[in-house]
Amino acid sequence: MTIQGSMFIGAREVAGGNGSVFAIDPATGETLQPAFGGATSADLDRACALAAEAAEPYAALAPAERAEFLEAIADGIMALGDELIVRVMAESGLPRGRLEGERGRTCNQLKLFASVLRAGRYLDVRIDPALPDRTPPRPDLRVMNVPLGPVAVFGASNFPLAFSVAGGDTASSLAAGCPVVAKAHPAHPGTSELVGRAVRDAVAKCGLPEGVFSLIMDSGYAIGSALVADPRIKAVGFTGSRRGGLALQAVSQARAEPIPVYAEMSSINPVVLFPHALAEKAEATAKAFVASLTLGSGQFCTNPGLVLAVEGEGLDRFIAAASEALTALPAQTMLTPGIAKAYREGVSALAGHADVETVARGAEGGAHCGQAGLFVTTAEAFLQEKELQDEIFGAASLVVRCLDMKMLAKVVDALEGQLTAAIHIVPADEAAAADLLPRLRAKVGRLLVNNFGTGVEVAHAMVHGGPYPATSDARSTSVGSLAIARFLRPFCFQDLPDTLLPDALKDANPLAIPRLVDGTLQG
Amino acid sequence: MTIQGSMFIGAREVAGGNGSVFAIDPATGETLQPAFGGATSADLDRACALAAEAAEPYAALAPAERAEFLEAIADGIMALGDELIVRVMAESGLPRGRLEGERGRTCNQLKLFASVLRAGRYLDVRIDPALPDRTPPRPDLRVMNVPLGPVAVFGASNFPLAFSVAGGDTASSLAAGCPVVAKAHPAHPGTSELVGRAVRDAVAKCGLPEGVFSLIMDSGYAIGSALVADPRIKAVGFTGSRRGGLALQAVSQARAEPIPVYAEMSSINPVVLFPHALAEKAEATAKAFVASLTLGSGQFCTNPGLVLAVEGEGLDRFIAAASEALTALPAQTMLTPGIAKAYREGVSALAGHADVETVARGAEGGAHCGQAGLFVTTAEAFLQEKELQDEIFGAASLVVRCLDMKMLAKVVDALEGQLTAAIHIVPADEAAAADLLPRLRAKVGRLLVNNFGTGVEVAHAMVHGGPYPATSDARSTSVGSLAIARFLRPFCFQDLPDTLLPDALKDANPLAIPRLVDGTLQG
Repeated sequence: MTIQGSMFIGAREVAGGNGSVFAIDPATGETLQPAFGGATSADLDRACALAAEAAEPYAALAPAERAEFLEAIADGIMALGDELIVRVMAESGLPRGRLEGERGRTCNQLKLFASVLRAGRYLDVRIDPALPDRTPPRPDLRVMNVPLGPVAVFGASNFPLAFSVAGGDTASSLAAGCPVVAKAHPAHPGTSELVGRAVRDAVAKCGLPEGVFSLIMDSGYAIGSALVADPRIKAVGFTGSRRGGLALQAVSQARAEPIPVYAEMSSINPVVLFPHALAEKAEATAKAFVASLTLGSGQFCTNPGLVLAVEGEGLDRFIAAASEALTALPAQTMLTPGIAKAYREGVSALAGHADVETVARGAEGGAHCGQAGLFVTTAEAFLQEKELQDEIFGAASLVVRCLDMKMLAKVVDALEGQLTAAIHIVPADEAAAADLLPRLRAKVGRLLVNNFGTGVEVAHAMVHGGPYPATSDARSTSVGSLAIARFLRPFCFQDLPDTLLPDALKDANPLAIPRLVDGTLQG
Repeated sequence: MTIQGSMFIGAREVAGGNGSVFAIDPATGETLQPAFGGATSADLDRACALAAEAAEPYAALAPAERAEFLEAIADGIMALGDELIVRVMAESGLPRGRLEGERGRTCNQLKLFASVLRAGRYLDVRIDPALPDRTPPRPDLRVMNVPLGPVAVFGASNFPLAFSVAGGDTASSLAAGCPVVAKAHPAHPGTSELVGRAVRDAVAKCGLPEGVFSLIMDSGYAIGSALVADPRIKAVGFTGSRRGGLALQAVSQARAEPIPVYAEMSSINPVVLFPHALAEKAEATAKAFVASLTLGSGQFCTNPGLVLAVEGEGLDRFIAAASEALTALPAQTMLTPGIAKAYREGVSALAGHADVETVARGAEGGAHCGQAGLFVTTAEAFLQEKELQDEIFGAASLVVRCLDMKMLAKVVDALEGQLTAAIHIVPADEAAAADLLPRLRAKVGRLLVNNFGTGVEVAHAMVHGGPYPATSDARSTSVGSLAIARFLRPFCFQDLPDTLLPDALKDANPLAIPRLVDGTLQG
């Protein structure tokens, strides 16, 4: 199978006629063939029309059938073999090992949702049987979660597999019973085509309506924006820049019917180093910190971009050890020339800030490489200068020296919403940590101990989300099995004859799923 | 206890100094004493500051302690005795029987949430234990729902008890662990004060931080708007007009941190009469329809404002019987002079519409009464004239004659989002009903059979919500135990020592609640 420069409008493989994009190998700067034509308004209209047509039959599918479909997608991705890995490497600059791991995660996500579908708890079925003899009589009430309808999914640059065409947002939408119109990220169109074809083929293999999945390319921003504006789209999944996320949110709010936008936008993921932990293990913590900071050239939403600690000998030792570890590191190729440029500009603005000291830089590298950086400022400066909170996407971190824990708490209170916070403690720090926990909890979606946010486990108990502006909707997660809830709403049937009820609600419980009957869990 | 014209800013009873409002007895037009002073900006600021202070200790309370608090509120409301009922009657024009029932529902709501808290399922605890031997090792992950923070609750005019100061939104917010700043509806300030004092006293009795509850009056719209704009407020519950709901939504979107607004705004609740049902029971259905339409002068969000049916003898019989039943009905006092005026204007615009025929009017009544009305139009006109979908709050309904089921389906497709839809069927209609169900499902939150939407059961399996613009967020319900979910978000602890974990997540499960451990439900 060779890369053709194709999109998929339902079953149909299409070469877009609205401008074109090329992938660029960020390691070499070389333009990769072929050209990928952008979708026209007619392509978009057809993708949305097909998705709307598919919505009802796809929603009506038994959960187990949707599970098989998700597994077929995973099989299809694996069957792409090394051609996929080679193309992702070329389009992203990411190393083979990371991408093979990411492919595994992508397939595991699909399989996790397959298991969620089979377990049936996601339907949250509740039945309050009729009480005809009560005054007034109670009707028969049955609630289950139903899909929202077609979802627009925007692929992320930094996870060309796990958060792109068949990534987390697509997997959770499809699991929920929502058709997907995916917009490929322009940095990895070839990867997108390969994966998109695998999904398209899985749709056909499972005998589903073709509109369950479409993949469109956009040579600019207009088609992506029109996708969110389309009245047939009922929700949006996005991972990317704050500017991009807010723009899509604004498009949604301007619709006649505003829709949920799940945008994961930016986070600097504060790390709090407690005094006893610093005293005991400043050096080991510094090494682990630098490893997390520079992993994948720092291109993770959960990258530790901010370190908070009380000043003193322990923090000095941490900074010295982190500087030593970081200075030794080679620069790494970043995902795209644009991201590398934005990183250089961000770092240069930070380094040039009057209240910021540059304490370490990694080795310099080629044109599209990210040179790691460690910077230090004071709590006073951080509290005054709002721009010191801006995310610099890449391997740069800012240490904030605080006079005492009270000042550190003030810094936490001044933070914007974040995906994660990490605390580094030893038992002697636990009382101080307990004091700080409520403040940190108010700011984040996940709190880690003696670790860093990078390495997001795909699990039932994961939350990858957090208060605005880390995401547009703190009530949800984009990673883990709870992500399916984003694309569901509760629906109530009152006194519907058993023959007309969905299987999930029928008296005989043919799906054999757990149900809350009159307030008591059964099955 | 006499009505003082008071608000409650935390524990403090305050006479507002920012303008004033009086209640008006809609039955007599008489102005009721005393005056209720509006909140100043300083009052609002203090209420929000107290709520923010209370948020953490209140969130940290054991669910069972919050349950006792909710029960104490219910006891306090009952202890107000007949003074409450008499005042609500005077302020709302609603009859004693209805209000005694509504008081019961209000207390039952509080008790339902108390039971939800004790059952603990609402926390949705998920634990994925550490797998230290896996490559890479899996950390210990524990998720539970945590409260969003202080909630602004706007009392509704049409449920002065069940959807006002200690109504559904307040009960679900307090259950979730969110402090409440309630804004009294200006139509029933005395009722609001009485209930507000009961809540304030329950806060004190349970030894909770005073900021858990405040009640403010607003002599206009500025303070309510400032309440939603306040950065310490983290979510909004509102039931009222579409204009009001959209205005609050716009205020939320203009904040530095937009917040969830749960606004229930308007609904005309389509009723579909199927041919065989009409043939068999047109007259009985018509009588039940008129009873639902005119209940409480039609002042329910779930009032059947739209009837869809295929034209023919059955529909003619329905219209004739409904007309007969309706013509015989006396006019009823409406909730406020303003609502009565808006109803008269709405009905008069509908009656004057070129494509609308007035087929029946109830008896005329006094100045603030609502004269019931039944109107008929054609599907063609309904599809063309968007304004025929506008809600007329009161006992008016529009019958849409459709040429056939195909045309009826088109009308359904053209509807805005609604709270409920009802279908009236006999077994011979089931095939046709099955065809129409998906279209109806896409438009509503609850589908009823052979009944009408009025009479919303407070239960586990209730959904009182629906697609925009019926509500601002179809992913939720404002009635029933699921309403608690609106004010929660999932939060993940990774590798937190057991001593620092909330009780819900501790290894020993001290709350004895059901938890999903490694994907399997325990307890």
